[in-house]
Amino acid sequence: MTDRKEFRDLSDPEDARDAIASLDLTPDPETVPLADARGRVLAERIDADLDVPGFDRASMDGYAVRARDTFGADETDPEVLDLAGTVHAGEKPDVEVAEGEAVEISTGAVMPPGADAVVMVERTDEVAERAAVEIRTAVAPGDHVMLAGADVAAGERALGPGTRLTPREIGLLSALGVDSVPVRAKPTVGIVSTGDELVRPGRDLDSDAGQIYDVNSYTVATAVEEAGGEPELYPHAGDDYDEMERILREAADECDLVLSSGSTSASAVDVIYQVIEERGELLLHGVSVKPGKPMLVGRLEDSAYVGLPGYPVSALTIFRTFVAPAIREAAGVPEPATATVEARMAAEERYGEGRMRLMPVGLTATEDGDLLAYPTDKGSGATTSLVEADGVVEVPADTAYLAKDESVTVQLFSPDVRPPTVFGVGEDDPALARLLDSLERPRYLAVGSRGGLRRLRDGVPDFAVATAGDGERDAADAEELASYEREWGLVVPAGNPTEIAGIADLVDRNLRFVNRGSDSGLRTNLANSLADLADERGTTRRDLTEAIDGFELAAKAHESPARKVAGGQADAGLGLRATAEKLSLGFVPVGTETVRVLANPERAGKAGVRELERALDDELDAILSELPGFDR
Amino acid sequence: MTDRKEFRDLSDPEDARDAIASLDLTPDPETVPLADARGRVLAERIDADLDVPGFDRASMDGYAVRARDTFGADETDPEVLDLAGTVHAGEKPDVEVAEGEAVEISTGAVMPPGADAVVMVERTDEVAERAAVEIRTAVAPGDHVMLAGADVAAGERALGPGTRLTPREIGLLSALGVDSVPVRAKPTVGIVSTGDELVRPGRDLDSDAGQIYDVNSYTVATAVEEAGGEPELYPHAGDDYDEMERILREAADECDLVLSSGSTSASAVDVIYQVIEERGELLLHGVSVKPGKPMLVGRLEDSAYVGLPGYPVSALTIFRTFVAPAIREAAGVPEPATATVEARMAAEERYGEGRMRLMPVGLTATEDGDLLAYPTDKGSGATTSLVEADGVVEVPADTAYLAKDESVTVQLFSPDVRPPTVFGVGEDDPALARLLDSLERPRYLAVGSRGGLRRLRDGVPDFAVATAGDGERDAADAEELASYEREWGLVVPAGNPTEIAGIADLVDRNLRFVNRGSDSGLRTNLANSLADLADERGTTRRDLTEAIDGFELAAKAHESPARKVAGGQADAGLGLRATAEKLSLGFVPVGTETVRVLANPERAGKAGVRELERALDDELDAILSELPGFDR
Repeated sequence: MTDRKEFRDLSDPEDARDAIASLDLTPDPETVPLADARGRVLAERIDADLDVPGFDRASMDGYAVRARDTFGADETDPEVLDLAGTVHAGEKPDVEVAEGEAVEISTGAVMPPGADAVVMVERTDEVAERAAVEIRTAVAPGDHVMLAGADVAAGERALGPGTRLTPREIGLLSALGVDSVPVRAKPTVGIVSTGDELVRPGRDLDSDAGQIYDVNSYTVATAVEEAGGEPELYPHAGDDYDEMERILREAADECDLVLSSGSTSASAVDVIYQVIEERGELLLHGVSVKPGKPMLVGRLEDSAYVGLPGYPVSALTIFRTFVAPAIREAAGVPEPATATVEARMAAEERYGEGRMRLMPVGLTATEDGDLLAYPTDKGSGATTSLVEADGVVEVPADTAYLAKDESVTVQLFSPDVRPPTVFGVGEDDPALARLLDSLERPRYLAVGSRGGLRRLRDGVPDFAVATAGDGERDAADAEELASYEREWGLVVPAGNPTEIAGIADLVDRNLRFVNRGSDSGLRTNLANSLADLADERGTTRRDLTEAIDGFELAAKAHESPARKVAGGQADAGLGLRATAEKLSLGFVPVGTETVRVLANPERAGKAGVRELERALDDELDAILSELPGFDR
Repeated sequence: MTDRKEFRDLSDPEDARDAIASLDLTPDPETVPLADARGRVLAERIDADLDVPGFDRASMDGYAVRARDTFGADETDPEVLDLAGTVHAGEKPDVEVAEGEAVEISTGAVMPPGADAVVMVERTDEVAERAAVEIRTAVAPGDHVMLAGADVAAGERALGPGTRLTPREIGLLSALGVDSVPVRAKPTVGIVSTGDELVRPGRDLDSDAGQIYDVNSYTVATAVEEAGGEPELYPHAGDDYDEMERILREAADECDLVLSSGSTSASAVDVIYQVIEERGELLLHGVSVKPGKPMLVGRLEDSAYVGLPGYPVSALTIFRTFVAPAIREAAGVPEPATATVEARMAAEERYGEGRMRLMPVGLTATEDGDLLAYPTDKGSGATTSLVEADGVVEVPADTAYLAKDESVTVQLFSPDVRPPTVFGVGEDDPALARLLDSLERPRYLAVGSRGGLRRLRDGVPDFAVATAGDGERDAADAEELASYEREWGLVVPAGNPTEIAGIADLVDRNLRFVNRGSDSGLRTNLANSLADLADERGTTRRDLTEAIDGFELAAKAHESPARKVAGGQADAGLGLRATAEKLSLGFVPVGTETVRVLANPERAGKAGVRELERALDDELDAILSELPGFDR
């Protein structure tokens, strides 16, 4: 393994911010059509260079008159003026208003010469006999007339530099006839994805060769866009020095900032490190912040460069904390107020590594709508922790302990992130998965029955889903919202070619079996059935499980064992009748088990929990009737 | 004038909401590339259809081993294993791990057959003499290995319908290899601009023919985009029935919703009304809400139709209140939390028309950051009130009075609207206009010295700018932040061809003059000079002003009179030396006046006011030195 000096002396987080701030990402201003200017930021002040309106304009439908001709007119003693013509909006008056005359005029029309006021149509009557109008009110000069330039006068300061263009500013610019505007350009950000194992989504994956889809490129590109930058994806650079150098230099040539991201492999990071050292300047390598160890900051030719960690949550965390602010600054776009929320810790949290921690947290809300934060990612690198984490809490290096209910500031991963309306944990179950579809913004973590009940006891989630009999002690205080039955057994190839009759065959025959994880309610039921079998045979359960090839082969989700069977990698898998039928496989029933939906007693009044109850009442029966082997 | 029945019985605002809700704007879902999916909303649930990772994966750099071979190893008593080969990330292992063997492995690489755990490189040493490695720690099966499907298992529910796609969801979709996603389509909204007088920005304007630029089309289009719709601008329809019908039907054919907007002219509204009645169905005409009178709701062929008022602030207000929620609903995008803020009334407000009022308000903040709201647009139809208004307050029909400090909810015109950092009012002055450019998000209303001081006395703005001597009583409590001098006089054509010598010529000769408005400090100074002249001549000031052709011709902005001179419409205009030189005109000096920048004493500690002070200290001298006739 190559020796990498960046892991020796880690920089202070403030130095990392300073280093990034020292890189100039600000591109030259650009001019965009007005129709594309929404959300952009004015690069310079805009003064009006015409009067709005450009003429004296009637602001009511009515009659243009000489005001003095109406003096003394009222309802009882109207003044009659001769009609000299008509002026519509958008036409040049072809008539003058002489003494004793009036001209019919539309709102927005040019005041005809001679007239200095408008009488509203509602205060007039046409005279039947001849072309004349009765005026039933007196008006003063200027009444119902907007003088040229009264709205905006030529030479006036209209909008200042730095103004964000929302609909109303677009409106003012339209009024001034401006159809293209000088705006701050979006910094272009090149994203170079590294690592031989990465494949673009949409392409074929060779899992045997260790390929995985590239998660960071699109994640970071989306975050760049959100921060006001213009992302540009570069092809995968792999771990080859020449190829990496070529792509990094191309990106540096075309972009204001180059980010590398993707691989967790040391060799890919080594190669980047070499290219930056040789073709640019490395300002810092490694930051004393968890998870900032692998971070790089430098220059590459005329461009700025930042290397992000490989794990997706870490990459997004470092981007959110160090890079997004620099992009926003360069784009001139302030961070939306929704990007940060205040929360309380849902449980205590200890940490003692002596460096700043950027702690990814999920959010949930109490009945009163107070936000609670709980740590999510434990550095596993799992993609799923991406969607569980709503944002990140900066924990200072000298804070080794956060108490339950302690206030924390959460920097959301996106201003569009909203905490879930309801937060559930527990058994992976197809009926529940469908039910979730009818809720708005639920979060559900399939951590198994036992895992769910443990978490419910800790008080963080709103509800848990568990099979009956499993961890009942933990569920003692919980309120049961609903329960239903599901048929479980062994999923086998279609037609059950090897004629598996039941779980005894797993013990007695040489079958490749796939089990579920130990937190799964299904596995508990299998274990109970095996215990019964052991009793019958006068032996121990352990003897039986050790005789099963694959009993320890725990698959994560409820469909996983069945999919191994479908793929020919196993002869039997623990699963549900519904799964077997969905995947057109055979099924050997073993028993039915009860699934319970249990509410956190402290959240019974929460709107999301009430919505869950409504869905259980209204929709569960229909869902169960569509799933084979499910019933009340 | 055509009789229009829509102005007879106005609908209740709730009925208007119901009518719009009854129109189905929701388009069929569409599929978009992952790279364009940011901010979109999933149309359906997405389940994983592969395992992530797709193989058992090393999660550390180190050595893949059989765990039992390491049992008992520690720092003092390492185990030595033969090196059987190497596996990098992204390659298929070409080696098996037999008993007593280890294989060098990179993070992310496929676990070679035989191995069930990884020993971190930090806990190993290569053996110098032969291809072997010393293992200084024991590992358990599964240590530093992520099993296939442990992150996401095939068949698992990944994201639910209705999920907003932010960077993290894009990340999860990438991990699943998804490169195009089914999302809720954006409702297409056709915007038909009406009125013969309207011209698209960028084109030439014929002011003599009463043309003005079309403000509403782009304003509403931008607001449609912000609400999650896809705006489509249609050509101006004018007031011709056949043309209007053709364009409205084309828009209805292509869009989910058609909005007409633009003209304030009754005839244009009449024509639309006829087309909807004949080619569709009018559900309601006129809403009992100020400014909702001219609103229309109906169907046009298979499309929904809403007619917005003609005044820009009114159009945006009705759009914000009635139309945007329907577009958001159809797009599946919730309103951003920043779209609404709480404020207190800056001053009392009376209103007694007995119908709901949608009151446009500007916002400013106290020293403590509390938001204050003050009504802006008084129904003038001015474009400038667009940028002064930050949002709208719904005042119920039975509320005739809002007290000072009463709490109100402000629906912002855009979630991107932020209250100004500092709010000033007063004299239109070129030095001040430049100074504002160096402040972040200032708001300045050029209402003249007197207008500014009046408003300052009412306590709403943070500062006022006024010429000395004008309304001094109102400024008694204010703190002077800075003052400077400016030279004023008569702006005349270049070279002063008619040899105007001073203000006496305005009285004595037959000259066309342009004055400033009565709130302007410049005009006060002119009036004072004329009073002196009247004293000299033993007459009254009034006699002199009546002798000046154009004394009452008040132009709005400080450059306006000069521009009339430049345009040949006047022989002399009231103005500044700086303006004359900027426009390359002649100048006849009359005097100098003092401009004072005065702070609201209750806002002295506000950050924006301190920033203004800093700018006055640091930048005013440089600005003054660049402006002819300006000095301390």
